[in-house]
Amino acid sequence: MGFKHKDIIALQDLTRDEIQLLLDTAENMREVNSRDIKKVPTLRGKTIINLFYEASTRTRTSFEIAGKRLSADTVNISTSTSSTTKGETLLDTALNLLAMKPDIIVMRHAISGSHYFLAKRLPCSIINAGDGAHEHPSQGLLDMLTMRQEFGTLEGLKVAIVGDITHSRVARSNIHGLTRMGASIFLSGPPTMVPPGIERLGNVTVCNDMRDAIADADVVMMLRIQLERQGKTLLPTLKEYSRYYGLNPDNLKLAKKDAMVMHPGPINRGVEMSSYVVDGDQSHILKQVENGVAVRMAMLYHVSGGELPT
Amino acid sequence: MGFKHKDIIALQDLTRDEIQLLLDTAENMREVNSRDIKKVPTLRGKTIINLFYEASTRTRTSFEIAGKRLSADTVNISTSTSSTTKGETLLDTALNLLAMKPDIIVMRHAISGSHYFLAKRLPCSIINAGDGAHEHPSQGLLDMLTMRQEFGTLEGLKVAIVGDITHSRVARSNIHGLTRMGASIFLSGPPTMVPPGIERLGNVTVCNDMRDAIADADVVMMLRIQLERQGKTLLPTLKEYSRYYGLNPDNLKLAKKDAMVMHPGPINRGVEMSSYVVDGDQSHILKQVENGVAVRMAMLYHVSGGELPT
Amino acid sequence: MGFKHKDIIALQDLTRDEIQLLLDTAENMREVNSRDIKKVPTLRGKTIINLFYEASTRTRTSFEIAGKRLSADTVNISTSTSSTTKGETLLDTALNLLAMKPDIIVMRHAISGSHYFLAKRLPCSIINAGDGAHEHPSQGLLDMLTMRQEFGTLEGLKVAIVGDITHSRVARSNIHGLTRMGASIFLSGPPTMVPPGIERLGNVTVCNDMRDAIADADVVMMLRIQLERQGKTLLPTLKEYSRYYGLNPDNLKLAKKDAMVMHPGPINRGVEMSSYVVDGDQSHILKQVENGVAVRMAMLYHVSGGELPT
Repeated sequence: MGFKHKDIIALQDLTRDEIQLLLDTAENMREVNSRDIKKVPTLRGKTIINLFYEASTRTRTSFEIAGKRLSADTVNISTSTSSTTKGETLLDTALNLLAMKPDIIVMRHAISGSHYFLAKRLPCSIINAGDGAHEHPSQGLLDMLTMRQEFGTLEGLKVAIVGDITHSRVARSNIHGLTRMGASIFLSGPPTMVPPGIERLGNVTVCNDMRDAIADADVVMMLRIQLERQGKTLLPTLKEYSRYYGLNPDNLKLAKKDAMVMHPGPINRGVEMSSYVVDGDQSHILKQVENGVAVRMAMLYHVSGGELPT
Repeated sequence: MGFKHKDIIALQDLTRDEIQLLLDTAENMREVNSRDIKKVPTLRGKTIINLFYEASTRTRTSFEIAGKRLSADTVNISTSTSSTTKGETLLDTALNLLAMKPDIIVMRHAISGSHYFLAKRLPCSIINAGDGAHEHPSQGLLDMLTMRQEFGTLEGLKVAIVGDITHSRVARSNIHGLTRMGASIFLSGPPTMVPPGIERLGNVTVCNDMRDAIADADVVMMLRIQLERQGKTLLPTLKEYSRYYGLNPDNLKLAKKDAMVMHPGPINRGVEMSSYVVDGDQSHILKQVENGVAVRMAMLYHVSGGELPT
Repeated sequence: MGFKHKDIIALQDLTRDEIQLLLDTAENMREVNSRDIKKVPTLRGKTIINLFYEASTRTRTSFEIAGKRLSADTVNISTSTSSTTKGETLLDTALNLLAMKPDIIVMRHAISGSHYFLAKRLPCSIINAGDGAHEHPSQGLLDMLTMRQEFGTLEGLKVAIVGDITHSRVARSNIHGLTRMGASIFLSGPPTMVPPGIERLGNVTVCNDMRDAIADADVVMMLRIQLERQGKTLLPTLKEYSRYYGLNPDNLKLAKKDAMVMHPGPINRGVEMSSYVVDGDQSHILKQVENGVAVRMAMLYHVSGGELPT
């Protein structure tokens, strides 16, 4: 089975079968990453541009390693060195890069919608590496892969997502992807951080009390408080936040025995969750990162027209 | 036929045959760039250092992609991470890099003459990626390649160049290259931006009125107003600049029917030219960028001792 | 003979045979670097992350070139783009990178001990590219290689090291490495810059007068005054420093005829040494840099389990 999309911008746009295909291919890529020689010639002679308008260590590094293990040529462009400082429009920058004949542009940009805007106008593939508060599909896929490895399926899982839902592209990608795959979502966060009407996205329940969200959950996903972006008004003191919306060994007991604990990183230890939980047996946080490279290899592979490898 | 130079610093230093050779090779490289697997082993095992003392997206990216498609190892060094902040002289930095045995150093530096200074002292090849207001030979070559694709020859073309001639290395490289190839140049810009005596460079005419420069032109090349560098004194208001020295559908009619419109980018839309012209049928701006990768591949190839590929 | 260590953090940890092995392999790598095609497939499919928490041109570039010439995939991460700005701990950053399955992390970090801390917890190899004032083993090795090329052996050499000993990781690596190999060390610097008790490190003599240190020396190694880090209190005026602790043609005559002059760079010309000495016949400064790539190739090779190439 082939993948029909030129771009991957949002999990909302993908069918159940397409998500399944990406996850299946990612498992094959995990095998490549476990080899002594972690390199396949799949994308040899292809050019990938990593265009990051926002700083990023792990996502950029993960995409760069993914591209290199597929033998692509990878080129990094970050905001600080970009022509945007010279007043060029995003479309002009993109058209200029396109003229250099990249096969794929992996882009992080603060403005939701910028990826769709470019994808319509550019013949090369666009992969969204995070766009404002909209979606972060590679993160959603790696989260789902990590859950599937644990439970064998996503169907029927109860997933709690706790924190600043409003500003979280991670939450949105997980909500779209997981509900599509048959999971049910329970959200909780300070009232200022939960967008009204989000239940309409599908199988989503909002809980005022975090304990209701994680009660009997298979997965507890804690979101990062973006201290560097947060306006003062949305958040009470960090201490208070941590008390009502932080994960600790006590409230984790409300979830299912052996429930998975997840976090997209980087973690503010002691804010979103106690160090005890971060480093505990139920934490799958580093497994998520490991799956990230494999998922990104799968994304790069399929937008390049790859079939499911056998 | 071989290319005799170790370095490419200025089009002023190249003969007609040498420019022809570079353009011919660039056409071969365009073919490589159109392949599904855009990679040839030509410079395998060669090391290219991209040493940029000024920020650049497109030129650095273009050279980096060019090097990678030729299978060279490419290493980027930009000012912000450079030892110059530690007070090292340019020559000391260059000698240190040389000791790492690069085959080619591609350098952008604000000081005209710094490339010649290094080229005399270093056995590796130096390619000028822009030096102050002196030359930008890869830009000049890609401009000429774009014109030659349209007209089959550069001989006898009438090329208008409009804008800040004084501070433009792009203008200087085009003037040297194009007059060498038999084209005639018509310059126009605010009096403060046209260096006295520039007519002595060859087949060059200065026109006070922009309309005289573009009248009957085959090519209209608009230069970028470097808003970020411009002192206040050289420029009247942008609105006034745009009125007297901006290209728009009306004054473009003065040029030949189907005259080429060119710009080195990044464009200040509405300043040097109206968006209608930027995006119009006569615009070859993105073709220029596309040719840029091919031209840079040709430059890297020939300074490495490559013959004309057959 | 194999190399038994997973990591290279300090020359203090290496035996005489291990240092010998690294230097021998570096000579083989020098041969690779002298080829027309400077590339061997030794580390194909391996991933090297260059994680620099402090700015660096030459060390980072040297490690990057070393990795590429061994055909590894190299990824650069520098502080400015790192998650540390988001408040992540060093260990969390490292564990996240580890999850991407790098084979080697080359790290520069201001805190002495951070490399040991990570090496104990991470299964991948850690190479120290400089840690605070502790050690800079690749610099120590390249210095020793340069001396061995000149004298055939390190046994019995008299090496003077002059400058800010207290803050110099270069001095410490050389002291540990050279004394292990049978050389004797004579240190000199302003009293505020020589740590009390350093003679206990081995065959080390402290001289108040620089002239006593360099008298009859085989090697005179001048350290960099880190103007950008120096607190005002440690240093008298630069002029005074230069007068009492700078190397010039006059005091150099106190050393052996044809004594080697060395400096880790970048040089403050006229401070640590006069330009006349920097550029003179006895200077081996650029040879040091050249050896740096070869030594780093040897380090990458041996931590990856390579045997001595034959």
